[in-house]
Amino acid sequence: MSSGPAVLSSTPMPASEAKWITLKKIVYRDEAGKERVWESAERTTRKSSGIDAVAVLALIRSKTNAFPLSTIIIEQYRPPIDKYIVEMPAGLIDEGETPDQAAIRELEEETGYKASKVVETTPVLVADPGMTNANMKLVVVRVDLEDKMEHPTQKLEAGEFIVRRVVEVDKLDQVLKEYETKGYVVDAKLQHWASGYDMARRITAGQL
Amino acid sequence: MSSGPAVLSSTPMPASEAKWITLKKIVYRDEAGKERVWESAERTTRKSSGIDAVAVLALIRSKTNAFPLSTIIIEQYRPPIDKYIVEMPAGLIDEGETPDQAAIRELEEETGYKASKVVETTPVLVADPGMTNANMKLVVVRVDLEDKMEHPTQKLEAGEFIVRRVVEVDKLDQVLKEYETKGYVVDAKLQHWASGYDMARRITAGQL
Repeated sequence: MSSGPAVLSSTPMPASEAKWITLKKIVYRDEAGKERVWESAERTTRKSSGIDAVAVLALIRSKTNAFPLSTIIIEQYRPPIDKYIVEMPAGLIDEGETPDQAAIRELEEETGYKASKVVETTPVLVADPGMTNANMKLVVVRVDLEDKMEHPTQKLEAGEFIVRRVVEVDKLDQVLKEYETKGYVVDAKLQHWASGYDMARRITAGQL
Repeated sequence: MSSGPAVLSSTPMPASEAKWITLKKIVYRDEAGKERVWESAERTTRKSSGIDAVAVLALIRSKTNAFPLSTIIIEQYRPPIDKYIVEMPAGLIDEGETPDQAAIRELEEETGYKASKVVETTPVLVADPGMTNANMKLVVVRVDLEDKMEHPTQKLEAGEFIVRRVVEVDKLDQVLKEYETKGYVVDAKLQHWASGYDMARRITAGQL
């Protein structure tokens, strides 16, 4: 009987054996002209766009206001954490793709929803610049539905296990807080977006 | 004549030589019971708290409303990116520290400002869970000033070069957008917070 996904072993790995990640020794000159060393982990998968990945914030609207403005988050098991992680839909950019194209493709594959338009795309952002060179863009898209909420079929690849969840944007921060008690962990970018959104509403309401 | 910080060389590094980062080969059982392999980069510096780092969103207020609600961001050269990165004040958690204590300490060291109170602390978040086990908490603090804006002295260590910048919270998203033209790169967590904040204001204003 399977009891769900789990890490069976985790062992140090020579960089020469790794396919997806490499370690780099960086020698650099600091602001005072002194030579220093820094260590960095880098993805080996970056394509000619120069950008590793995109994350997608989808705003799902009903043309008849049949439901409140909503977004979609995904839950998936992540081996480096050995837990289910709650994230925005996201993925690596394929060769020849623009970030917007990758965002629209990943949104449809992971959630089934088709973007009606791209609202905005951030400049290149870095996820953890003290530790890695990993970079990405946040793409905000609108999904305009004719009337009631729809639940289109996901287009997952074999071996992909992604649960999607539609959440009212106004309730996102509260929903994320509730995941902790279930043993899930929230992605930092998603939580920061939700925290900023929630903070704006609290400041407007005079609560801070 | 120095022309500022810069990478001099970047070379592949055996994991056995790295001090700060290690590569792990993870064998795990997936949702279908199949054994699979994943690669992960991990910090070697995590202390007994089990949490690598904190980021600090400081809300700077004047008791006399002498200036609008503001926050503080920092600019620092990051070797893995070879550019100046714009981030929230942040840092690794020392042994024996709580996340809140680390946040208050890092804020004062990097910016000079002393937190008046902790507004809220998120659960543990993960920065890039497909690639690393790196985790952190976002700590929101208030800095209550008696009247006008103050500019207390930073407490930087030797070899630390951090520029701080006070920004009106309502203008944060716009300020971050302007960094791209200067060749700076914005941290994903900071940009996501600002994007969420800005989106809430645009939705309230009926602009989306």
